Amino acid sequence: MTEKKILIVSGTHGNELNPVWAVKKFRNLINSSPKSKALEFILGNPKALEKGLRYIDVDLNRSFNVLKTSSNQNFYEVNRSEYLINKYGSQGSKACPIVIDLHTTTSCMGTSIVMYGRRQRDFCLAAILQAKFGLPIYLHEKDINQTGFLVEAWPCGLVIEIGSVAQNHYDSEIVERFLIILDFLGDLINNLENNRINMPSEIFLFIHQKSIDYPRDANYEINALIHPLRINNDWKMIEEGDPLFLNMDNETLIYKDKQTAYPLFIGEAAYREKNIAMSFTKKEILKFDQEWIKALLSF
Amino acid sequence: MTEKKILIVSGTHGNELNPVWAVKKFRNLINSSPKSKALEFILGNPKALEKGLRYIDVDLNRSFNVLKTSSNQNFYEVNRSEYLINKYGSQGSKACPIVIDLHTTTSCMGTSIVMYGRRQRDFCLAAILQAKFGLPIYLHEKDINQTGFLVEAWPCGLVIEIGSVAQNHYDSEIVERFLIILDFLGDLINNLENNRINMPSEIFLFIHQKSIDYPRDANYEINALIHPLRINNDWKMIEEGDPLFLNMDNETLIYKDKQTAYPLFIGEAAYREKNIAMSFTKKEILKFDQEWIKALLSF
Repeated sequence: MTEKKILIVSGTHGNELNPVWAVKKFRNLINSSPKSKALEFILGNPKALEKGLRYIDVDLNRSFNVLKTSSNQNFYEVNRSEYLINKYGSQGSKACPIVIDLHTTTSCMGTSIVMYGRRQRDFCLAAILQAKFGLPIYLHEKDINQTGFLVEAWPCGLVIEIGSVAQNHYDSEIVERFLIILDFLGDLINNLENNRINMPSEIFLFIHQKSIDYPRDANYEINALIHPLRINNDWKMIEEGDPLFLNMDNETLIYKDKQTAYPLFIGEAAYREKNIAMSFTKKEILKFDQEWIKALLSF
Repeated sequence: MTEKKILIVSGTHGNELNPVWAVKKFRNLINSSPKSKALEFILGNPKALEKGLRYIDVDLNRSFNVLKTSSNQNFYEVNRSEYLINKYGSQGSKACPIVIDLHTTTSCMGTSIVMYGRRQRDFCLAAILQAKFGLPIYLHEKDINQTGFLVEAWPCGLVIEIGSVAQNHYDSEIVERFLIILDFLGDLINNLENNRINMPSEIFLFIHQKSIDYPRDANYEINALIHPLRINNDWKMIEEGDPLFLNMDNETLIYKDKQTAYPLFIGEAAYREKNIAMSFTKKEILKFDQEWIKALLSF
């Protein structure tokens, strides 16, 4: 099993610089230690990174399930996703069974994990990271509008999402947080194989329910912003009547659902073009299932 | 004097959205009140705003002193600066003697004023705003590498700079801060003419000394980030030995000057391309000069 590697992807979005820096620094610091052999590193979108843009043609992190057609076959990201799968995916020359995709957000998400769907291996890995670092987990599922995420193209994979931090802005405190996680991942497979990881008894999840758009006028222009009492309050419960938006007339638009919710990615800059002002989640606790660890070790 | 208007420019950088939103909201709220007649509004760089970019060809806010040549005559911003001066400058069809240019920064500058050079009218206006809101003032001068700022093309003008906020990210708390200042500016000329403004006895300034670049390797790649103890500490005094950068080997690079300094625009994302990691300033206090107010009222 010593050949099993975790693929670390940074720069999947070319304007998220801190993961790229963290990886560069981590590789410099670990040099040729055993950790370096347990990990494989790749830049997700080097061309967008060079230009300081999220992407060149389309969002790379929504491109891992697209069918190549005459209209998209020249899109840089469509070809890049193919390249990454062909090289690092299950059948690749540098196959890695696990992928960790490092991201930042302009939302106040803190250090968090994003999971896509309910795969046993992902549950195991997320539970380990949650138990070790206390990270909250956003489980994204059943959302037909947001698909084709990078980690879904591997048999096991998670996103590490840290914010708030501006696009194209270096923040060494954010870098430090990525370094701590990279350091842990460098020993993870070895520790797993040698039974040195304590598994938690439960996993706490924030399950995706739906995303909502900004209020818009007749011309489809946004006409209200996230309310000052809502911005920067990711992971915080809201109830019926709580403020969501503040419009041009200084009127507060409220949350009208009976069901409490935990809004995430509140006001993320890159999601405006996806018509997402925030996503609502609900809490769920699952018992840790021993099958999860069997699945993770069964590669 | 009722024709005297203050020109409010927002979106001079197309990825600084909050000033644009604040202006839109302010105009909606004041509608046709007297404030609306005291102000003139214009988007600095509408084309860049549409694309969510700082600029299209060159930085508009460094383009107000460039000579048109065969190599730059088609640059959008070079032509836009000409348009703005021709329309709203001293000889323009909608001439405004005073301009306020609204900006945001990814640095932790709070709500602040930037002045360019030592013009009497600017001193008066900055002193009034400082006395009213307690804003710190960065006086930018004697910097041959940074010239051609918008406000310098008007007889009187200041930048309002608010941060930290991410590029292309809406934050209604930042919007609120701009609204407070816009509201004050809407009454300012009227209040000045009717002697309803109390002038302070002094003005506190942070005077530009020099800017420093990031440390770089032999390939001119940045190889150290702003130190975790320095980032987000704009306006805070540093002394010899204080940390500035943290490099790839986790070594701290320190400030080596005997002279204390106050670093500003620490790590501003848009300044990396200008080779600026931060700017050093020193404090200066000037007595309020009655000539300043005469100058401001002498238009």
